[in-house]
Amino acid sequence: MKLRDLPEDRLLDQLLSRLSRRKSVAAAAGDDFLVLKTDCVVEGVHFFRGTNALDVGWKAMMRPLSDFAATSAVPQFALITLIVPEQTEVPWVKELYRGLRRAAKRFQVSIVGGETSSTPGSIAISVSVIGLVEKGRAVSRRGGKAGDDLFVTGRLGRALKKKHLQFIPRIVESRWLTDNFSIHAMMDLSDGLGTDLPRLARASKVGFKIDTKKLPLTRGANINDAISEGEDYELLFAISPRDRRGLQQSWRKKFPDLPLTRIGSLNRKSKIENRKLPSGYVHFQQSG
Amino acid sequence: MKLRDLPEDRLLDQLLSRLSRRKSVAAAAGDDFLVLKTDCVVEGVHFFRGTNALDVGWKAMMRPLSDFAATSAVPQFALITLIVPEQTEVPWVKELYRGLRRAAKRFQVSIVGGETSSTPGSIAISVSVIGLVEKGRAVSRRGGKAGDDLFVTGRLGRALKKKHLQFIPRIVESRWLTDNFSIHAMMDLSDGLGTDLPRLARASKVGFKIDTKKLPLTRGANINDAISEGEDYELLFAISPRDRRGLQQSWRKKFPDLPLTRIGSLNRKSKIENRKLPSGYVHFQQSG
Repeated sequence: MKLRDLPEDRLLDQLLSRLSRRKSVAAAAGDDFLVLKTDCVVEGVHFFRGTNALDVGWKAMMRPLSDFAATSAVPQFALITLIVPEQTEVPWVKELYRGLRRAAKRFQVSIVGGETSSTPGSIAISVSVIGLVEKGRAVSRRGGKAGDDLFVTGRLGRALKKKHLQFIPRIVESRWLTDNFSIHAMMDLSDGLGTDLPRLARASKVGFKIDTKKLPLTRGANINDAISEGEDYELLFAISPRDRRGLQQSWRKKFPDLPLTRIGSLNRKSKIENRKLPSGYVHFQQSG
Repeated sequence: MKLRDLPEDRLLDQLLSRLSRRKSVAAAAGDDFLVLKTDCVVEGVHFFRGTNALDVGWKAMMRPLSDFAATSAVPQFALITLIVPEQTEVPWVKELYRGLRRAAKRFQVSIVGGETSSTPGSIAISVSVIGLVEKGRAVSRRGGKAGDDLFVTGRLGRALKKKHLQFIPRIVESRWLTDNFSIHAMMDLSDGLGTDLPRLARASKVGFKIDTKKLPLTRGANINDAISEGEDYELLFAISPRDRRGLQQSWRKKFPDLPLTRIGSLNRKSKIENRKLPSGYVHFQQSG
């Protein structure tokens, strides 16, 4: 059996069996949890030969930072592993680093070093980021409760056109949310709502129901794009319906230019196990 | 200009300009420094198509752990980024993980998660490790003093034959050294003594003199191999000659099976700048 025959979730479950499957470390450090996230971008998968190097660097740094938004943690230091063929032009690599530095600076992250290796294959950039989150404020995919409202920030779909290279992780918004409300569960939408929402529901041991007509669509995107395409890097979170009105009012004041949309709710766990929804599945729900 | 035309040191200096150039983060965490190291292995560079996957996993984990030995830090958690073509056989990847887990277990490191990506190119495995070192015990390449003895652990040369896939980072030895002696400067020998010693000297702003006849050679290796081949993952350290006798006596008691060899000393900084010694340069020294 080859890797392509296994869905990524199942592969990771198999490989990391007997280990808790997380993309991060959270270790106690006084009143804070230490958070460590790692992510990579690979030529031919996350970007292509002609992609602007500045954008590639930006994306490589912003992907792990988006994981910090999901946890409501504050990133502090970054390490870069750069795997590049020897025939790569130095100006390209410098432009890549300019993108990495610019993205890091946006969130006051210090790039403290890294490692380079040559390769006979494709360019790959792996970024590890370390930071902190106050113990009372850490959020995960677990913790969603039946009856919770489900919200998403921003607009979904068509991110592959341009946004995936220039997105801004929702760290500021996430920090504001956990500073002002009790957020039960949260994640960043990297693989598309149709893949990521079932993950949140599964981790929270609940079902969900979405009103697809309410999905906030990027101009030119349809519902299917919003569910299936991925790379939106918006926040999806679950919060008690008691907080609905207060949240919506304060959000509009604080972030007038960024939509916040209630797209549905969590409900009692379905009898059948949550699974990845097939791409193209438009009117979707999963409930008990 | 292409990457191949630049020596790695100069490339990193250029890319990380205005940043402190380190492979690690050290941030204060109470009485300890937090240490974060990252390293990678790439198919076609650090291993080849036919290499045993268990060995590849072992090496991928042990390389950053060897950086912990250099700092005298204690590793605790690891994150793995695995970049593999979709046609890779699942048993190969499982065996790789077995190697990663076995290596981590040897030093009580918890693999807490990771990230996978497909690639149209070569296999690459990047491992980030987080740990701690007591503030009074952290060692770096800086701090070597003119007059210091230079010691290496183990034997040098011919590591590419087998040892580079099965080496044991000198963490235990390094922790014992800093527990019992004042180690002025230390590093792990990954690129070969001929490349790494000038780095230590440059960082410590001193010169060095080596007696090549004293180099502890692996069976079958010659002096040139010991200087130029690399991948030894032994410790090189600088210590006051006042500690010489005490160190040698206690070492023999504590580690009877592992040679410890005084190979030379540090001296006043040379007038000409230290530079990378050409491979094949056998009787080498650099002094004021």
